[in-house]
Amino acid sequence: MARSDTRLVRFGVFALILIVAGFILSRGSNKAVYAGSGVTEPVAAKEATSGGHINHKLSTVNDIVLKNTQKTSGVDGGKRVKATIVTLARNQDLMQLVSSIRVVEDRFNHKFNYDWTFLNDEPFSDEFKETTSALVSGNTKYGLIPKEQWSFPEWIDTERAAKVREEMREKKVIYGDSISYRHMCRYESGFFWRHELMMEYDWYWRVEPDVKIYCDIDYDIFKFMEDNGKSYGFTISLPEYKETIPTLWTETKKFIKENPQYVPKDNMMDFISDDNGNTYNGCHFWSNFEIASLKFWRSDAYRKYFEHLDKAGGFFYERWGDAPVHSIAAALFLPRDQIHFFQDVGYFHNPFHNCPIDRDLRLKNKCMCNPKDDFTWKGYSCVPKYFTVNNLQRPKGWENYT
Amino acid sequence: MARSDTRLVRFGVFALILIVAGFILSRGSNKAVYAGSGVTEPVAAKEATSGGHINHKLSTVNDIVLKNTQKTSGVDGGKRVKATIVTLARNQDLMQLVSSIRVVEDRFNHKFNYDWTFLNDEPFSDEFKETTSALVSGNTKYGLIPKEQWSFPEWIDTERAAKVREEMREKKVIYGDSISYRHMCRYESGFFWRHELMMEYDWYWRVEPDVKIYCDIDYDIFKFMEDNGKSYGFTISLPEYKETIPTLWTETKKFIKENPQYVPKDNMMDFISDDNGNTYNGCHFWSNFEIASLKFWRSDAYRKYFEHLDKAGGFFYERWGDAPVHSIAAALFLPRDQIHFFQDVGYFHNPFHNCPIDRDLRLKNKCMCNPKDDFTWKGYSCVPKYFTVNNLQRPKGWENYT
Repeated sequence: MARSDTRLVRFGVFALILIVAGFILSRGSNKAVYAGSGVTEPVAAKEATSGGHINHKLSTVNDIVLKNTQKTSGVDGGKRVKATIVTLARNQDLMQLVSSIRVVEDRFNHKFNYDWTFLNDEPFSDEFKETTSALVSGNTKYGLIPKEQWSFPEWIDTERAAKVREEMREKKVIYGDSISYRHMCRYESGFFWRHELMMEYDWYWRVEPDVKIYCDIDYDIFKFMEDNGKSYGFTISLPEYKETIPTLWTETKKFIKENPQYVPKDNMMDFISDDNGNTYNGCHFWSNFEIASLKFWRSDAYRKYFEHLDKAGGFFYERWGDAPVHSIAAALFLPRDQIHFFQDVGYFHNPFHNCPIDRDLRLKNKCMCNPKDDFTWKGYSCVPKYFTVNNLQRPKGWENYT
Repeated sequence: MARSDTRLVRFGVFALILIVAGFILSRGSNKAVYAGSGVTEPVAAKEATSGGHINHKLSTVNDIVLKNTQKTSGVDGGKRVKATIVTLARNQDLMQLVSSIRVVEDRFNHKFNYDWTFLNDEPFSDEFKETTSALVSGNTKYGLIPKEQWSFPEWIDTERAAKVREEMREKKVIYGDSISYRHMCRYESGFFWRHELMMEYDWYWRVEPDVKIYCDIDYDIFKFMEDNGKSYGFTISLPEYKETIPTLWTETKKFIKENPQYVPKDNMMDFISDDNGNTYNGCHFWSNFEIASLKFWRSDAYRKYFEHLDKAGGFFYERWGDAPVHSIAAALFLPRDQIHFFQDVGYFHNPFHNCPIDRDLRLKNKCMCNPKDDFTWKGYSCVPKYFTVNNLQRPKGWENYT
């Protein structure tokens, strides 16, 4: 290489370094505006491990934010949306959660570095915070659930609730005798989206311990939701156990009769009812996976619907799950085209798999699953109904996976 | 930003693009020198899926190379060593193998793009080739094992061998009645390192179906071996079932008595024998994970040792595993400091885990495992002996994981 060329190259490289450095610095300062509403103190640096608690307006809340200083800009650079991955977990769930974090990071988030918000009804242990913050490529946040959102509301007759749990234990209804499961279902229905740490976000991806994502997600899945006008995304759908929701539909019908303004014309009632709304067929989106809009839960329609259900008491007098509550709300209060079935990511939560049956898609997205395990087109799945009522084209060869 | 600054920036960006493009192109042409000894035809492009078989000197060999045109340069750029990941597998192992490929790619190879060589005693199916080549970031190669390396040698009395299998079935020796397991052990002992597709490499990493790597490997693990003068790397060590190797040690003693020139002074006899070589204690490196030198197996010492064992017939008249064969050879023919215990990668092959017990290392390397599961310091493990005979310092707190 001639001497003058070498100089030109040197200048080019130097210019490049300057530009890149400038770009990184300017982005960095953007990201420094980090802590959301209610978090007023500068956030603790990631290296400073746990420790630095931040004071909140609510004295019962004891939340922590750990910044990931290595966080990169993500593939889409400045066009990111306001989104967080969110996990409700106990300290003892850590090891099962580690594999979920790893797989979500490997398949998606290491390219996008979205924040991860952890919520718990007890303070997170240092081990929990250190381990999870080491694995997440974005910032991590640790929120304490206010006591009043994880206990019996004053209007609940706790004796009646206890009798129900006893009956359900005898009938062997799954989680039928659990108090904490009920608090969890009520919390996921009515409160996680208004936790202080969640207030700066418009979108969330719910991730539970011990789940798997099977395919590479090379696009910004939150941005996809926003750009395509979607509000609720799911991977698996099936009917709920009827014994857990004897009066949920009666209460729902009461609510929509009193509040018809919340039900758009192009709703998806035909997905959840086979008789024009007389009875609920039980079909719900399996809510352990959700990529959805926080604004939807924060809407008047959903807030009031939740309040109605909460007052009716079925979270405690029966065992209403957040899955049918979310699903009925999405089906009734959203235009049907805002509900999205993810066919391309693959998902596993014991005992059901979503594995794309389209071979080309599986190879393109490097899905590590066996299409024979796919639940989507099996007899018990509600996804075929979702395709039918929405006039969607089923993937080629679906009949071989029933 | 002033007008002149903008121009400067534009020039810088332009220069940068030119440089990067030039760099990529120059690297690309280096990589085109790809097909190794014995492979004389230009290799098929990855997009051309299966199909294009390459003629080899050996008419029984029917090997295929799929180039990954998206292959990047790897973190260490031009300083890569000649290495391949290698897997002996059957077509029906595909689904179990997919998870192994995914985890090795996620934890290590997506950053280094090393080739992956698959070997099989039958031709690989199109599905196998298409699926694995979609998952591997490097080039993939598919080799057929020559018939004579996967069958009874002429000097073996097949009736005697059949009687042994019958006896072992009755005694319930694991894999004791299997013919194919014996061919596999013999192949992994004496042949995989001389397969034509392997001839261009100096290093390999053996990966089996359904294994896990728990930690990020951010360094070039092959280059580490070369730069540090290592020849054999392992993660788990334990004693072999004695019923599978009644005469292996007798034959070994015979061999080293006749060939003392192959045994260096600083060998590791004290790891495999507790009585100065009189008897074998059974300790072996679990060979389903190996990162090791191909040159070592190709050395005179090992070639002759294998030939001696093969003629003695114990692969068929007993059930000698490749693990004790490799391990005894490594312990006797290598200086002890060429044998490396990987403490930092984490590994699982049913039923044993290697999970680093050092908390800081676990966090730094993002290990997704529970140190309570770690087998390293448990009573049945041979790793404590490895540390003792080599005067190595055990990690802090090892006594809490026994």
